[in-house]
Amino acid sequence: MKFGGTSVADIDRIHNVARKVQKEVAAGHEVAVVVSAMSGVTNQLVDYVGKISPLYDAREYDVVVSTGEQVTTGLLALALQQLGIGARSFQSWQLPIRTDSAHGRARIAEIGTEGIVRAMHAGEVCIVPGFQGVSEEGRTTTLGRGGSDTSAVALAAALRADRCDIYTDVDGVYTTDPRITSRARKLAMVTYEEMLEMASLGSKVLQTRSVELAMNHRVPVQVLSSFEEAAGSALPGTMVVDEEEIMAKGLEQSVVSGIAYAKDDVKITVDGVADRPGVAAALFGPLAAANINVDMIVQNVSHDKRTDITFTVGRADLPRAQAELEKARGVIGFEGLKIDPDVAKVSVIGVGMRSHAGVALIMFETLAAKGINIEVISTSEIKISVLIGAEYTELAVRALHSAYGLDSA
Amino acid sequence: MKFGGTSVADIDRIHNVARKVQKEVAAGHEVAVVVSAMSGVTNQLVDYVGKISPLYDAREYDVVVSTGEQVTTGLLALALQQLGIGARSFQSWQLPIRTDSAHGRARIAEIGTEGIVRAMHAGEVCIVPGFQGVSEEGRTTTLGRGGSDTSAVALAAALRADRCDIYTDVDGVYTTDPRITSRARKLAMVTYEEMLEMASLGSKVLQTRSVELAMNHRVPVQVLSSFEEAAGSALPGTMVVDEEEIMAKGLEQSVVSGIAYAKDDVKITVDGVADRPGVAAALFGPLAAANINVDMIVQNVSHDKRTDITFTVGRADLPRAQAELEKARGVIGFEGLKIDPDVAKVSVIGVGMRSHAGVALIMFETLAAKGINIEVISTSEIKISVLIGAEYTELAVRALHSAYGLDSA
Repeated sequence: MKFGGTSVADIDRIHNVARKVQKEVAAGHEVAVVVSAMSGVTNQLVDYVGKISPLYDAREYDVVVSTGEQVTTGLLALALQQLGIGARSFQSWQLPIRTDSAHGRARIAEIGTEGIVRAMHAGEVCIVPGFQGVSEEGRTTTLGRGGSDTSAVALAAALRADRCDIYTDVDGVYTTDPRITSRARKLAMVTYEEMLEMASLGSKVLQTRSVELAMNHRVPVQVLSSFEEAAGSALPGTMVVDEEEIMAKGLEQSVVSGIAYAKDDVKITVDGVADRPGVAAALFGPLAAANINVDMIVQNVSHDKRTDITFTVGRADLPRAQAELEKARGVIGFEGLKIDPDVAKVSVIGVGMRSHAGVALIMFETLAAKGINIEVISTSEIKISVLIGAEYTELAVRALHSAYGLDSA
Repeated sequence: MKFGGTSVADIDRIHNVARKVQKEVAAGHEVAVVVSAMSGVTNQLVDYVGKISPLYDAREYDVVVSTGEQVTTGLLALALQQLGIGARSFQSWQLPIRTDSAHGRARIAEIGTEGIVRAMHAGEVCIVPGFQGVSEEGRTTTLGRGGSDTSAVALAAALRADRCDIYTDVDGVYTTDPRITSRARKLAMVTYEEMLEMASLGSKVLQTRSVELAMNHRVPVQVLSSFEEAAGSALPGTMVVDEEEIMAKGLEQSVVSGIAYAKDDVKITVDGVADRPGVAAALFGPLAAANINVDMIVQNVSHDKRTDITFTVGRADLPRAQAELEKARGVIGFEGLKIDPDVAKVSVIGVGMRSHAGVALIMFETLAAKGINIEVISTSEIKISVLIGAEYTELAVRALHSAYGLDSA
């Protein structure tokens, strides 16, 4: 069971979490719990570090910002003991949760489970801090913001857990953002691949890395709410599982599982570049060197040996991208840059489209019928994304949600 | 160097601490620093624990309340790096600071210094959290409130440091409380034994345990202010050292070093107890069993086989002491209890009184001359304490300060 910062934000909520753990114990499960820091605490610590030293040593940053999770582990252990449940905390150096030495964004290499297994066999619930680990050199590391989901999945994998329940402030994964259409439905099941696309498209239910890890180790993950009580049912959230598992359940597999959207990108058009071999490398080489992620790319048909190249980058990377392109202008030889920040990426996602033709056509026809112009298209095996004017986002999402038969009755 | 909670209360003060460390480094010293939690932080954490579970597991209490010091170690390391000084933190499990398993009030058994010595030789300042340790079982322990002084002295002993500088919010040890008389003088040196008496008498400059430890390991301790800048001089505080060291310096040893007072005790008189063997045991046995510390004791001359016994206990222990005595009334067989909360203990302290007669007489004469009645007397080798009416405290302290020649010119 993993509980995020809002789920453990104060003493009352920690007691609430303890009651949720109590139910699982009462149901006969052996439980390990991963907790985040009380919400606001990590921000406060990061703020201290920024104020003390703008160019900080990531090793000491990790020493400071990892303390919030430690506090929560102790408090939850106490709350469980208060309910008469045996419980103890394990810090990352005690297990250990071994990571590489990339402080501030470390990756988990291995988790020692001997202590946890022994405590579990003695009837104790084990509480482990998310987000933190310990390097080969024996120093405290952190996994980067939101790393607690990854900690939980890694621990579930190491323990060969039957399930990894991620408690959050939403009660599952929806066919689309319920704030955009009241017809959005909660999915009972979704595949790792679909979840991965949703996560990377800005649907922030789970950290992308945690989904990758769950997929690689085939850890069944459940997303559910820590605030709403399920009316009796055993699995009230959304299960993120292997495709075969969904098929084995004999569930009707819809072609499209969900509609995602993201407004994190801006569109850059480079006008009048020479249409010759090597020009794409000249253009995208400097961006890659500057660690700027380029997402959708389209190159126009050439006129008079000159062409336009359009692509998207993250909004936060725009100033750096512009600077890099201007620096390389002599080598690339373009006529001008056009920036359009008012764009949105809308995607339809579904493993079913692998075996179904015509999924893209429905998308294009639906958007055309609403008079929405498609600026860029990109596709993967299980996803079709289009770039459109930001103002059409909600209209497009609603129309596609209906067109693919996702609307609730 | 050890810095308490008020010295590291915010980011500005942590930068100030870093500059003090910088000066020592510039003077050619190898420095290890022990820090407390930012002031208020530990209280907040203790409060969380109390709210979550009134009857808490001390092992998890320690997990929670030890985090404040960890935060400060990282922040101070960063502040030093910002000044161009190599610095790193070591948590107690990294050294380790090995303690017994008495969670919440653990005692330090041993400190591993290998890591610190190696880092020092590499030119790094080492920052260590006060107050915390790790048990033989590998669990986090704390030393009890105020334990950071003890951590600092223990680390200084383990490193065979030339000096342990305890930075606090006063600039040294005074002949008496400067709030009572402006003629109080800062002592350049004081012996461990005297410091121990002062500490146990409520002069809260240093924790009693840290002084005991310094005495046992002959660690020279300096008490000095983290807020006032010394005008150039090398040792601006008070040195707490061995008696021989003071003599070796050829300093004039005054007979009395200081006048201390405490208002922490209440006086209990047990009236009309039988004057027979075993009655004192019957009286004080139940108090000892209830872990109530009895300080001064006086027994009156017997009349008609009955006598009165007067003693003092800590103010906080009074309700429990009364309850224990009433429970044991049948066995003790007393007529009544008289409680006087309006008392103060005033003490004159000095190793010089070992070799000087008449020190007590000066005290009694001085108090008599001011019309102050002495209710109880107790003495040790280097201390004479009297219990007087609380309202006379300031009058008595000022008169004694003059009588023993301690007034500044």
